[in-house]
Amino acid sequence: MADEVLFEFLHMEIVSHVYKEQQSGKGEMDSKDRAVSVSVLEGMGFRVGQGLIERLTRDSPSFKDELDIMKFICKDFWTKVFRRQVDNLRTNHQGTYVLQDNKFALLTQLSSGKQYLDQAPKYLAFSCGVVRGALSNLGLDSVVTADVSAMPSCKFQVVIQKL
Amino acid sequence: MADEVLFEFLHMEIVSHVYKEQQSGKGEMDSKDRAVSVSVLEGMGFRVGQGLIERLTRDSPSFKDELDIMKFICKDFWTKVFRRQVDNLRTNHQGTYVLQDNKFALLTQLSSGKQYLDQAPKYLAFSCGVVRGALSNLGLDSVVTADVSAMPSCKFQVVIQKL
Repeated sequence: MADEVLFEFLHMEIVSHVYKEQQSGKGEMDSKDRAVSVSVLEGMGFRVGQGLIERLTRDSPSFKDELDIMKFICKDFWTKVFRRQVDNLRTNHQGTYVLQDNKFALLTQLSSGKQYLDQAPKYLAFSCGVVRGALSNLGLDSVVTADVSAMPSCKFQVVIQKL
Repeated sequence: MADEVLFEFLHMEIVSHVYKEQQSGKGEMDSKDRAVSVSVLEGMGFRVGQGLIERLTRDSPSFKDELDIMKFICKDFWTKVFRRQVDNLRTNHQGTYVLQDNKFALLTQLSSGKQYLDQAPKYLAFSCGVVRGALSNLGLDSVVTADVSAMPSCKFQVVIQKL
């Protein structure tokens, strides 16, 4: 329904706006322009993630460890933001987590398969930021990257930064 | 809940991004910068409104007249996008409509009352675009403006452009 796609539509508009803005006046974007665009989108996501997790954990008991936090992100948080649970969570028990979503909400508007795979990164920067922002508010510094091998399936890699 | 505020948070980020971008390098924004920002946000809203109404009216019977369309916007459309119905719809029966929402979703994150009234317009440009985009897809060209006298109450004025 429309209320579900509102976020997706708005997200599409932002991605397109941020990329256009970097490209303006130039023919092709170089890798620096792309990096700036990704960073802008990631930053927006970070702040949105912080806001969301604050709301979501307001009435939650505190978490017992890092894995407990990651499970919360994969279930409750993912459901609220991306409308389904993560399909698979793997970890090396040393601070690296791989979250696999086989039908990632922000990629379902795009054509499935491998045809537009080169376009995928720009639709994932915001979401990486959302996850990083949420973890940051729960006391975990992290690096979050995303990887797509066939749309709309997506893997997020979260590496917790130890002090 | 978080899924309800996701759109609001993202909207806040966009407004802040678009305004910052116009302001960059300058101390104060002049009226031209503000006009550009409003126009960018309105354009984003327009495209989102077009997409949403397409989804929403896919299975609807066609509308019998202009007033019928406006009623649909005030009830079904408003509920999906702004999570409540318009409180009051008035018309002069000559193509001008005033939609009053006493608790407008995108203003509830801001402080109530009259204190930040000068900040209100930037949070309404996107929504004006959404309404204009929806009407445009239903075959009505319009000019949509918004007016706030005390937050979070808001009046949208829609003037249908006759050919």
